[in-house]
Amino acid sequence: MYKGDITVNMNEQKHPFDIATKLIREDEVFKGETSAAYANMVGPFGGTIAATLLRAILEHPERQGDPVSITVNYTAPIVDGDFNVKAIPVRTNRSTQHWTMELSQSEGTVITGTAILANRRETWSSTEIEFPSVPSAEESLSLPTEGMPAWVQNYDMRIVRGIPGLAADENSTDSITIQWIKDKPQRPLDFLSLTAICDAFFPRVFVRRNKMVPASTVTLTVYFHADTETIDRHGNETLLGHARAHRFQDGFFDQIGDMWTSDGALLATTHQLVYYRD
Amino acid sequence: MYKGDITVNMNEQKHPFDIATKLIREDEVFKGETSAAYANMVGPFGGTIAATLLRAILEHPERQGDPVSITVNYTAPIVDGDFNVKAIPVRTNRSTQHWTMELSQSEGTVITGTAILANRRETWSSTEIEFPSVPSAEESLSLPTEGMPAWVQNYDMRIVRGIPGLAADENSTDSITIQWIKDKPQRPLDFLSLTAICDAFFPRVFVRRNKMVPASTVTLTVYFHADTETIDRHGNETLLGHARAHRFQDGFFDQIGDMWTSDGALLATTHQLVYYRD
Repeated sequence: MYKGDITVNMNEQKHPFDIATKLIREDEVFKGETSAAYANMVGPFGGTIAATLLRAILEHPERQGDPVSITVNYTAPIVDGDFNVKAIPVRTNRSTQHWTMELSQSEGTVITGTAILANRRETWSSTEIEFPSVPSAEESLSLPTEGMPAWVQNYDMRIVRGIPGLAADENSTDSITIQWIKDKPQRPLDFLSLTAICDAFFPRVFVRRNKMVPASTVTLTVYFHADTETIDRHGNETLLGHARAHRFQDGFFDQIGDMWTSDGALLATTHQLVYYRD
Repeated sequence: MYKGDITVNMNEQKHPFDIATKLIREDEVFKGETSAAYANMVGPFGGTIAATLLRAILEHPERQGDPVSITVNYTAPIVDGDFNVKAIPVRTNRSTQHWTMELSQSEGTVITGTAILANRRETWSSTEIEFPSVPSAEESLSLPTEGMPAWVQNYDMRIVRGIPGLAADENSTDSITIQWIKDKPQRPLDFLSLTAICDAFFPRVFVRRNKMVPASTVTLTVYFHADTETIDRHGNETLLGHARAHRFQDGFFDQIGDMWTSDGALLATTHQLVYYRD
């Protein structure tokens, strides 16, 4: 599709997300660098890093298929500056392809990961969970991002439920957040931005405890439930995200999230384990 | 605890699960072999394989801490017989340790994985989801395992809800299974058996479609919410597992599961992505 290709190429050059996840291939290594636009409190936003690892696969000459799963482990803070990404196609089957990934800086490996691509075939299909009952994005207020880390400025977030700092008392009864989210400025959705958006919930402990405490993701997994065509069709529309924790225990809590289109297609489910102090 | 140590040593020698996950360290490689007792329809039960990869870490001389997360990717069927496991401590921090794992056979890498260990510290803690409302294990009937793959014979499963093949019509309205489960013969719970039990749900598509179709896990993640002491305390008691899918789409569905003690401690949450044909 000629028009689509032009859009993608323009975005690859100009959108802050594409600059942040940009990789240049040199032999067996992809070279990248952190972007001030997606800085977090310490190091870069983990969602951008996960997307960068996925980008190395999607731009790898041996790529076969669309992503169905990615797991990224944050072993240490990334230092601002250059990094190298290696993506290795460990096994290519008829319909699936398994990858391992590694991001390194001068002092060694900082991020590890694995991912699976697949050529999907039409089967009996069904979405079993229900789209949350929410006001539309248009009816919801954008989150003021003043004073928040740089990466937050690149999203239009409209939190319908579970805003850290707005509960009546210190302990909310649950950690559920429901939020409308899209890239700011607009950018057509793809697997890369969807991956980053899966990590764009504030830490559940902020919501549950209604205060900020030290918290950082140690491992993130995304399962993709849609192919390229479905994701392309989504374009610039807002996504609806639902996230909650199951258990907070002695320094670690989990988060499970669902990412929906506004017309009820479940594009991805995501899980992460987060270190916290409290 | 002297008595406990004797129990563990006896089990390590004699229990079928410990035979199936047994590894012998030779330089930088652990040697293992598949066990007929845990055979699945094709190759070994994936839960045993995940446990074997975790075992390589827990028995590694550089191990620091207890597991908090493991992800295992099934890149191709394992052939019955010998295999090698490599476990590499990629990064050791003050309170966390990151690992990559690989299981290989003569034709190359068959399983990849990553895991995180941690030394937990006491923090504000809370289990946010509720223990399912169920009859006790004693009130529930054990699943007849006649004609089922070998690995199923090693578990006492009492399925309270969502037994494949017992719904009234072809399409159940959901894929939820709730089951009591423990090792048969008895074996005190540890991180290894808990990992395997996280993979011991029948594929969600069997429940939802009320028939057997080809299905195999491509990636499995377990988040552990308990330390060694809590898990040791569980001993031989039955666990309660809850599992469901969010979406079945064009050859892949996800499964999310929770593993509970009978007195309401959430020991682990688990996710997997499963290939299916239907």
